Amino acid sequence: MTQSQQTPRLDEIRDLDRDDPLAAFRAKFVIPDNTIYLDGNSLGAMPQAAAEIGRRTIEREWSQGLVTSWNAAGWYELPRRLGGKIAGLIGAAPGEVVMTDTTGIDLFKAVASALALRPDRRFIVMEGSNFPTNNYVVQGLVQLLGDNHQIRFAEAAEINDAIQDDVAVVCLTHVHYKYGHVHDMREITSRAHAAGALSVWDLCHSVGALPVDLNGSGADFAVGCTYKFLNGGPGAPAFLFTARRHHNQAIQPLTGWWSHAEPFAFKRDYRPAAGIARMLSGTQPILSMAVAEAGIDVALQAPIETVRDKSMRLGDLFLALIGETCIEFDLEVACPRDARSRGSQVALAHPHAYSIMQALIDRGVIGDFRAPDVMRFGLTPLYLRYEDVWQAVQVLREVMETEAWRRPDYAERLAVT
Amino acid sequence: MTQSQQTPRLDEIRDLDRDDPLAAFRAKFVIPDNTIYLDGNSLGAMPQAAAEIGRRTIEREWSQGLVTSWNAAGWYELPRRLGGKIAGLIGAAPGEVVMTDTTGIDLFKAVASALALRPDRRFIVMEGSNFPTNNYVVQGLVQLLGDNHQIRFAEAAEINDAIQDDVAVVCLTHVHYKYGHVHDMREITSRAHAAGALSVWDLCHSVGALPVDLNGSGADFAVGCTYKFLNGGPGAPAFLFTARRHHNQAIQPLTGWWSHAEPFAFKRDYRPAAGIARMLSGTQPILSMAVAEAGIDVALQAPIETVRDKSMRLGDLFLALIGETCIEFDLEVACPRDARSRGSQVALAHPHAYSIMQALIDRGVIGDFRAPDVMRFGLTPLYLRYEDVWQAVQVLREVMETEAWRRPDYAERLAVT
Repeated sequence: MTQSQQTPRLDEIRDLDRDDPLAAFRAKFVIPDNTIYLDGNSLGAMPQAAAEIGRRTIEREWSQGLVTSWNAAGWYELPRRLGGKIAGLIGAAPGEVVMTDTTGIDLFKAVASALALRPDRRFIVMEGSNFPTNNYVVQGLVQLLGDNHQIRFAEAAEINDAIQDDVAVVCLTHVHYKYGHVHDMREITSRAHAAGALSVWDLCHSVGALPVDLNGSGADFAVGCTYKFLNGGPGAPAFLFTARRHHNQAIQPLTGWWSHAEPFAFKRDYRPAAGIARMLSGTQPILSMAVAEAGIDVALQAPIETVRDKSMRLGDLFLALIGETCIEFDLEVACPRDARSRGSQVALAHPHAYSIMQALIDRGVIGDFRAPDVMRFGLTPLYLRYEDVWQAVQVLREVMETEAWRRPDYAERLAVT
Repeated sequence: MTQSQQTPRLDEIRDLDRDDPLAAFRAKFVIPDNTIYLDGNSLGAMPQAAAEIGRRTIEREWSQGLVTSWNAAGWYELPRRLGGKIAGLIGAAPGEVVMTDTTGIDLFKAVASALALRPDRRFIVMEGSNFPTNNYVVQGLVQLLGDNHQIRFAEAAEINDAIQDDVAVVCLTHVHYKYGHVHDMREITSRAHAAGALSVWDLCHSVGALPVDLNGSGADFAVGCTYKFLNGGPGAPAFLFTARRHHNQAIQPLTGWWSHAEPFAFKRDYRPAAGIARMLSGTQPILSMAVAEAGIDVALQAPIETVRDKSMRLGDLFLALIGETCIEFDLEVACPRDARSRGSQVALAHPHAYSIMQALIDRGVIGDFRAPDVMRFGLTPLYLRYEDVWQAVQVLREVMETEAWRRPDYAERLAVT
């Protein structure tokens, strides 16, 4: 690790915060005292407005409105209405996105739909090191389909070569969950189309963190979650995009009454709804969905180019400070050093990453661990300050210098996120 | 419609409430003023304790605990912990049930798992008049599997004959969503097993309303929802039961990291967890799930035989009062008259059922409509009084007598539940 010549001093870092065009957004969130929260890429912080939506939905709409709230409080429209808002964050048209179910379920729908549109092709290109649930979902689908399909695993540098004319679907996560590298959505989608394949993009680590232009990139399907950079709350429902040109042809297999052409006619046989509604399934978890609107609304107020600019600066600062102050501790930078190739996170590898992260958490610096040896630090420009990054690196240095991470119980501590 | 000789007078009805062993449960719920709520079979009333759980989960666990609440607040354990509680309501063992996803998604998992256990058989027996989403889910699955399977639709009286030795799965809803008839779970399951088939039971209109004995009946798989008689909140996650004898063989296709043998090892390839955890998929909507515990806990406090006894009495009273006071209005009883064959609801058919229901709702009597001509009145013994039933029938009589339902806008009013 080499020392940067341009690492700012603390007073210069404070100037960055003073001049930050996003500084006012921090007040829209609740950040616990004595906490530097670098895990907003796992679960985003609570927007102030979320508490009021939660109380309203439970204590007024449910309690007093009861079943009439499906109409009167707009519950039934939430998947399409919030999908329309999310569309504005990912370069989609309002009628191309629904908020529904979980990322994995939505990925199943998207890949199954895409495979059905390419019936004569066998292969699905995926990044083997991707967040494994994506692999599991597609492995489950392939097995269900009688093993007539096969995943062709490729790491980032191998993807272009993997996209041959036997490929039905290219299914990638835009920003890598662990190492943080960003795929060129437009270039890969073009290559997929040139080979006759369709694209399915997972935006879990992109939406709300960096510009996404699904239609500008020609994307066919996309999914993503709302509880990371969209700050929608724990396990808030996911979203599913289908390009309008596929709306009449795409048939997803997890059919339910919410995806029927006449949901309240209670007809015996399934007939898909027109448009994006056919990507829905059944009755949705309304409390989780309603509360998520608070975070989506905050994201819509923040110019995404400004968010991205700050995110890159935060990451560059983090890496520069690590290079300057932690050079002797054998921490390996596991994310791209070039900010343009890096999502909104920094990853450091160390053989004792798990224990180091526990020591950091005990000191109020909350990041997370990803097996086998990576510490992730999420950078959330809406509520993180440059000085927070400085402070986090000071704490990391102290943990490394004092070897505080060697406390035996750290290695045994249970953590599930 | 014939008049019962034994319809109680109002003073006798009040005696029933005074002597009701479940009377104290009403105070555990919030019932809006001037409302007789007969739609708890669509969305149950809010338990008092739900509001506090909602505030705690959002405003403390999320807001202050942030990502650490996955461990510290037990979020990650919710599907199994609450599944264990639900098990106690349906005659299952704690390790046989998870709370997760939606009823339709869980039905897809259950039927797909069951079909895979009977690979040489083609047919799935279903009741064509069942809640249509169940048909849609299985139609979607059949199409995905390349139409190698086929649904054999049978109405209640035809089911036994439909279960032949070409049947892989018998997939029925225990209590019919519209007409309210109850299937004999033990008898049909026995017949399915004798024919070499497996059973999948939908308990949406049973759980919390009448005794269910899955293991005593030999059931193989079951699903159900928690927002009707369990009062879990709008769209609260569903549950999925798999009999322990199938745990090592059953493979469901909607695989996700929560169903992996080592969810935090982040291995590339899927390997199913031991036990019921393999029926999980991905990250769950925690707010909706956490809040649902309030209603589940209330249900666990109420002896189900006492609940069932009151439910049958409420239904008998409703039908007797209809017979006595509404005899001239051409209302047809569309549910079984014998309480033992009837779930926890009453159904009346009328050519103008939709408009009549709108007039009732405007007068504070909330039931619902099911196409083409049925009014449903859900009977929820934990918070409904005998006098409420009497009052509801008085209002119905007034609506019929004055023809208040003929207001032109009633027929046009949008309703989605």
